[in-house]
Amino acid sequence: MHQRVTMITLGVADILKSRAFYESLGWKPVKHEHGDGIAFFQCPGMVLALYPRDLLAADAGVPAEKKDTFSGVTLAYNVNAKDEVHAAADQARKAGAKILKEPQDVFWGGYHSYFADPDGHLWEIAFNPFTRVDEQGRFMMEGDG
Amino acid sequence: MHQRVTMITLGVADILKSRAFYESLGWKPVKHEHGDGIAFFQCPGMVLALYPRDLLAADAGVPAEKKDTFSGVTLAYNVNAKDEVHAAADQARKAGAKILKEPQDVFWGGYHSYFADPDGHLWEIAFNPFTRVDEQGRFMMEGDG
Repeated sequence: MHQRVTMITLGVADILKSRAFYESLGWKPVKHEHGDGIAFFQCPGMVLALYPRDLLAADAGVPAEKKDTFSGVTLAYNVNAKDEVHAAADQARKAGAKILKEPQDVFWGGYHSYFADPDGHLWEIAFNPFTRVDEQGRFMMEGDG
Repeated sequence: MHQRVTMITLGVADILKSRAFYESLGWKPVKHEHGDGIAFFQCPGMVLALYPRDLLAADAGVPAEKKDTFSGVTLAYNVNAKDEVHAAADQARKAGAKILKEPQDVFWGGYHSYFADPDGHLWEIAFNPFTRVDEQGRFMMEGDG
């Protein structure tokens, strides 16, 4: 795995309220077609996302209510092909990660896997066919960050 | 506040074990003078840090054992001057953030403040006199990421 974090997703109780908070800090969300179900903020080289906490837990395949195993934050390692999801998941497994979700299709058209690091911090390995990671490992949803 | 995340810090139980895990993924830590007390991994434009969970909570001024108010993860917004810490903290306060720590000196030579977003996600606003955020908002501790 290359050395990068392409997305941080914060689990939130109310997307509109949380998005408004970040907008009040002067941030501008990425325009997208998914309505108010998720919010993305393009940062230099990576994206901060806001997503309902219960749906984020479900995405990772962990119980939302158990704060011992779900902190409410996930990190993502985006890749540019499905086979890279498998390669990264295999490497994480060999490094001793707990694989929470084997590589599989996701409803939004992507392909992903989840693992937990030694402290239970959750990582998604994600292939999103609508975006790319560039040669410098930067993940851009909009503009140049 | 500009749109950037300059550091993600993961609270860990055992720095050496966690650092070894990320090294097993192929990552290389930044060489620094602080021994095994903290580990930094330079990513494109930002840094992933590993720090003892209890010390991370103490740094933010929240109880480490209360998982309702401390997820074990903090985000940082680095700036290039002490007065920018005040400006960002003021903006966060006006946006409705809960200020957990007013701007103040830190033992390692920096100057910082902490706030919680509407869901309790913790942000450090940090001035580190030994590093800089560049004009694109990228935070580099080593090389070009």
